[in-house]
Amino acid sequence: GLVGKRSFAVGLLTNDTYGRFTLPVAAGLSSSMADRGVSVFLCAGEDDADRVRANIDAMQDRRVDGLVVAGKRIDKGLPFELADLGIPVLYANAACPAGTIGFVPDDRQGAHLAVAHLIGLGRRRIAHVTGKRDFEASALRVQGWERALAEAGLAPFGEVRYGTWSEECGYEAALDLLAPERAERPDAVFCGNDQIARGLIDAATGMGIDVPEDLAVVGFDNWEIFAKATRPPLTTVDMQFLELGRVVGHTMLDLIDGKHVAPGLRRLPCRIVERRSCGGG
Amino acid sequence: GLVGKRSFAVGLLTNDTYGRFTLPVAAGLSSSMADRGVSVFLCAGEDDADRVRANIDAMQDRRVDGLVVAGKRIDKGLPFELADLGIPVLYANAACPAGTIGFVPDDRQGAHLAVAHLIGLGRRRIAHVTGKRDFEASALRVQGWERALAEAGLAPFGEVRYGTWSEECGYEAALDLLAPERAERPDAVFCGNDQIARGLIDAATGMGIDVPEDLAVVGFDNWEIFAKATRPPLTTVDMQFLELGRVVGHTMLDLIDGKHVAPGLRRLPCRIVERRSCGGG
Repeated sequence: GLVGKRSFAVGLLTNDTYGRFTLPVAAGLSSSMADRGVSVFLCAGEDDADRVRANIDAMQDRRVDGLVVAGKRIDKGLPFELADLGIPVLYANAACPAGTIGFVPDDRQGAHLAVAHLIGLGRRRIAHVTGKRDFEASALRVQGWERALAEAGLAPFGEVRYGTWSEECGYEAALDLLAPERAERPDAVFCGNDQIARGLIDAATGMGIDVPEDLAVVGFDNWEIFAKATRPPLTTVDMQFLELGRVVGHTMLDLIDGKHVAPGLRRLPCRIVERRSCGGG
Repeated sequence: GLVGKRSFAVGLLTNDTYGRFTLPVAAGLSSSMADRGVSVFLCAGEDDADRVRANIDAMQDRRVDGLVVAGKRIDKGLPFELADLGIPVLYANAACPAGTIGFVPDDRQGAHLAVAHLIGLGRRRIAHVTGKRDFEASALRVQGWERALAEAGLAPFGEVRYGTWSEECGYEAALDLLAPERAERPDAVFCGNDQIARGLIDAATGMGIDVPEDLAVVGFDNWEIFAKATRPPLTTVDMQFLELGRVVGHTMLDLIDGKHVAPGLRRLPCRIVERRSCGGG
């Protein structure tokens, strides 16, 4: 428990060396623990098993009071099975083994939210351009897109277009999807991330297509440095990593205090952030 | 020294919660120390003095073997004077107090490199659009721009244009600087960061100005997710934070081993990364 020690620390282990996903989680974790005087030590490394083990050893030697394993995709966990460390372990935005406790954003719900938003604005021909096919996040977002369309009695507009998670991928997809010679073009595109959405909007604008008048676009990530700089600024799904980090922090405090928490994976809700790429905002 | 202990750890304290500057430093630091079995614990927080103190206390309690204070600008340090912690302390991309050891990128040299590159490509009317005036980095980059021009017998093209460090700022600056009614327009712009460069290029392209044919543009940061996605991809100055982190790591190992290192601030060289926004690459 949190009694009789001078300071407390929770280790945050991640393979996200770019920090896009883990730093907001770390900030939420820190803010939820600061009132209790708990510090968060982040240890970032690639997926090399020996290095990861060395980092865990170092944290254990330093008697951290808990460990959070964070990642950059929800379908990848640690490169080996974790032995019992004698301290609470939680998983954040990473795959969690059976019997453990994990927290991930609800990708399907987030995608459903985005597509229902487009439908609510009167769009009917809604395409989906996304990243890599082998990501579980991609599959869940496709399901959310399909489900929201089905609930409104609409068919998907064409096949899902997979690519990388880059602007280039969105740009190239737009050149084909929006080509003037096509008999039918979409009136909206739900994109798998903000970079794809930005590339797609830049290509559309260059082709003389007005966003949002002719084409509404929704992104995914709410990576503000992209979403706000897009012309027009991007309506997008926020995975609420800061809030996810806070929930992880509160759960960790419960575990450190000796409370019982049921094992299992929790999917936490996304929200939509409206800017101008759908005509609202 | 690094003998007789089971594991070693260096604390990395930063106010850069976005991670843009600190994560590459952390990666370089980790890579330089991994061979010696040293882990790096990153502790990120805002500039609240009580929180920073609590994080330092937690690291000391956990017996870290050294501390690196990292920041997001070279003219800001810790919000209070650090007492002797009994372990080596180094400063990275942050202001270091007298008598301590610090490492920052050489902004003046990086700017000189950028402008000399433009001059070497035959450009003569070289403007400078940058971020906030009160950043030491801004002042040093202005000096590098002026010095490279003076060495070539050229005058600065107009006054420095200050703004925020955003795409919007580059976009707005371009609308004025490149306006068709102007008697003379620049044939090159050296930008204070990659976001400014991207906004400026997007505006120029929208005005029918060809980059790089009519206008060469150099950025600063080599933030690849921006620099590579700009159309055309951006020639830019790389502050080599990974390498800076490695130098910090080697210096830390020397100090932990009991070697003497002279105090003072070291400015480490930047390099230029050529892509297509200047016509090369």
